Amino acid sequence: MTTDLESVVAANKAFYAAFEARDLDAMSAVWEHSDRIICTHPGWASLRGWGQVAASFFALFQNSQHLQFILTKETAEVAGDTAWVAVDENILQSTNATTVAAFNLFVRTAGGWKLVAHHASPVSDSTDT
Amino acid sequence: MTTDLESVVAANKAFYAAFEARDLDAMSAVWEHSDRIICTHPGWASLRGWGQVAASFFALFQNSQHLQFILTKETAEVAGDTAWVAVDENILQSTNATTVAAFNLFVRTAGGWKLVAHHASPVSDSTDT
Repeated sequence: MTTDLESVVAANKAFYAAFEARDLDAMSAVWEHSDRIICTHPGWASLRGWGQVAASFFALFQNSQHLQFILTKETAEVAGDTAWVAVDENILQSTNATTVAAFNLFVRTAGGWKLVAHHASPVSDSTDT
Repeated sequence: MTTDLESVVAANKAFYAAFEARDLDAMSAVWEHSDRIICTHPGWASLRGWGQVAASFFALFQNSQHLQFILTKETAEVAGDTAWVAVDENILQSTNATTVAAFNLFVRTAGGWKLVAHHASPVSDSTDT
């Protein structure tokens, strides 16, 4: 018996697995294909709707080097038919590593938990503003 | 009769009104006071739980200059007892302006819609990475 929390954590892992593999089909399976979804890559303006979001991953997968995600400080919460995961993405890319704070929102659907929002932002060395 | 969408948009406005007014009591009323809340200020690591989140606003309100938020590109979605707002915060501060992409997640409670996640990140001039 898989709990909701386990299913959400698995859906979150599938997102990063698709990202690492640069697998657009797997990434497509993670997301809800609707107009209400939001994706904010680090430093980017927010993208809205599956068309814009899919195009961004297509571009990232074409252009970027291989990224490896080491996930830390993961917390997951389920609230009815919605769930969210906050996690630090420690991204290893050739010779450098950066830390990105990410927030992922999922909704329960007939086809399982689907991603409706991903917001990722670079963490500065200092938390002073 | 106020719709859910109108109530969520109002709750989102109350967050920015409290921020502009540097009013910790008003900010406190906006948030759910629980361990599951998440707040990621631009460039900061994610803060978890009302204790950390409240402390961050206390520090920001003490230290920062007056901020004015011009909100653009606001979209709001209600999904059962959860709702989210994505919005661009155009922040005016003394002589400069910056754009921050924000994502705010609310849950329905007996006391109205309460904020459970706020993630804000600076938008670079270019969307290339």
